[in-house]
Amino acid sequence: MHKIEINPQIAALPTEVFIGEGLLKSFFLKNFCTHLKGKIIIVADPLVKNLYALDLATELGAKILTIPSGEQAKGSKTCQFLLDELFKMGADRDTTLIALGGGVTTDLVGFIASIYMRGLALILVPTTLLGIVDAAIGGKTAIDTPFGKNLIGTIYPPKAIFADLDTLKTLSEKEKLNGLAEILKMGLIYDASIWETAQKNTQDPDLLLKAIQGKIEIVQQDPLERSLRRILNFGHTIGHALETISGYEIPHGEAVALGCCIEAYLSMQLNYFSPKEFEQIQTMYSCFPLKLPSTYTRTNFIHALSFDKKKVLGKIRFVLLDKIGKVVPFENTYCRAVDPHELESTLDWMENRFLR
Amino acid sequence: MHKIEINPQIAALPTEVFIGEGLLKSFFLKNFCTHLKGKIIIVADPLVKNLYALDLATELGAKILTIPSGEQAKGSKTCQFLLDELFKMGADRDTTLIALGGGVTTDLVGFIASIYMRGLALILVPTTLLGIVDAAIGGKTAIDTPFGKNLIGTIYPPKAIFADLDTLKTLSEKEKLNGLAEILKMGLIYDASIWETAQKNTQDPDLLLKAIQGKIEIVQQDPLERSLRRILNFGHTIGHALETISGYEIPHGEAVALGCCIEAYLSMQLNYFSPKEFEQIQTMYSCFPLKLPSTYTRTNFIHALSFDKKKVLGKIRFVLLDKIGKVVPFENTYCRAVDPHELESTLDWMENRFLR
Repeated sequence: MHKIEINPQIAALPTEVFIGEGLLKSFFLKNFCTHLKGKIIIVADPLVKNLYALDLATELGAKILTIPSGEQAKGSKTCQFLLDELFKMGADRDTTLIALGGGVTTDLVGFIASIYMRGLALILVPTTLLGIVDAAIGGKTAIDTPFGKNLIGTIYPPKAIFADLDTLKTLSEKEKLNGLAEILKMGLIYDASIWETAQKNTQDPDLLLKAIQGKIEIVQQDPLERSLRRILNFGHTIGHALETISGYEIPHGEAVALGCCIEAYLSMQLNYFSPKEFEQIQTMYSCFPLKLPSTYTRTNFIHALSFDKKKVLGKIRFVLLDKIGKVVPFENTYCRAVDPHELESTLDWMENRFLR
Repeated sequence: MHKIEINPQIAALPTEVFIGEGLLKSFFLKNFCTHLKGKIIIVADPLVKNLYALDLATELGAKILTIPSGEQAKGSKTCQFLLDELFKMGADRDTTLIALGGGVTTDLVGFIASIYMRGLALILVPTTLLGIVDAAIGGKTAIDTPFGKNLIGTIYPPKAIFADLDTLKTLSEKEKLNGLAEILKMGLIYDASIWETAQKNTQDPDLLLKAIQGKIEIVQQDPLERSLRRILNFGHTIGHALETISGYEIPHGEAVALGCCIEAYLSMQLNYFSPKEFEQIQTMYSCFPLKLPSTYTRTNFIHALSFDKKKVLGKIRFVLLDKIGKVVPFENTYCRAVDPHELESTLDWMENRFLR
């Protein structure tokens, strides 16, 4: 028998991240794009198309593909539509895709870029607080399936990310809360100074930069989510399941805020996290409209939980808090299997507290 | 403005390649699999299921998913079927997929492994000569689209490849020719000694090992196909277009054999390749049933060519031969744009020679 080892020399290319005001309106993005060789195609939903994509397309001589808005658009149907349109437009390997919009758009277009002809150049231009502090950063791409959220996807870092802070000025309060949920999560799992700042003023501009910096530090160390990166999943085990059973009617940030409260409660129940700090969490999240979706039943919730990507050997695993700013490391797995009977009292509390 | 660079530390894992007789029947594959943590799921078509998958599944305590056979199965429909079945079976990130079969199976299952929950462990067990010398090696995964072959896919190296040479004993002559086409291509583009050996005896067992070794050397240097790896595409620009217009009725190897002849003719027409060596090529390929598909028209052929993945800025590019064993490097691009008028006389010759 012959044994040969293939060692491909894959050098991961760095992602350049630009954060500032007026990036879309300045010549900056245009200058960056003049160095690209082939076609440029911008993908946006109808709202973002009118706000930013039409102007940007004119600037860059780019074409626009319009996708429906909302999490319901992040599925195989829109995926097939985009692939077909790209073929019809003659997109080739020199084509660059610009994903302009919120997390739905950047996740979906990132996935398309990663599978079209085995990979197109990708630029992300997040236009929501959630997109800027979380979804656009870290190279994860995804679409949802009827079985659950983000269950199909790839790790495919973009060439560049342009976070134009001016886009935040048009956001509704609801949209801002959506992003705040991920910022607060970063405070809970990684950087207690974010939590402390947010306790004084949730609008402090430092929060955004610190959250981005934290996420970058984490994903650089563990891009493929084999270990440390799992901490970013805090609040998302519960959060994703709630989104799934609601048919993606509740916004991601609201689901994550609920998930963080409930998983903090679970951390306390399992004696990792102190009741005193749990009080702080309850106070902080009172600014969110925390309600379980109207479609909630314990049965469909448990079923949705069973599709969590951290599950191994049939056991659902949770990221658990040690204290504010730190999760329990569990020998570098950063998550722990939780048996159904251990979950029971947390679900009782959750239903009692958040059922409509 | 802030500028931050994200440098993810992605270490490409090596692929272990085992080549020998009796690998499926020995305890070898089983031993390898005892080190895997989660579920094992074997994917095979009905023929391979009966020949090998049922026994292997019993050995490994694995489940089997059956897919239709033939290139027509390598599309979005089978893809959706496999993803749904995996969700229903509760496949999680600790699951290993074993692709057992020819190039269709290894390409398709590789793609599924790369996108299911952002990546499952993958083992390829190619059971055809074409699969062993070509399709299974190099980390390319793909599905076909109505626009063309392999237009959707990823680069996703498997954990291991088990090439059991006993599986070749059940192959038809047609299947053997299918693999020979890729071996001869390797002789033309990279290793003249393969060509010389094949001129004496196309059944020489050394051919298989040399072809595998050649492919590994090439893909290690350029896994993402930015440069040298393009030489493997010789014969495939024409070949893929012929497969597409035939509705995948003609076998890949036959299409590649035709493609190699025609692209060698083109290389000669453009004065890169000598008429004397072209004669050798004509002689060698006389063992193949070289006929254009019955659906061929020049119009649909040119249309299908226009979806070639090497196309940039609207121009179709070809890998061209310098001499037997060497392609023209074209400043490390290893391909050259060919204008429609430069292609004209080659298409005339092709129709004259190979039209049914």
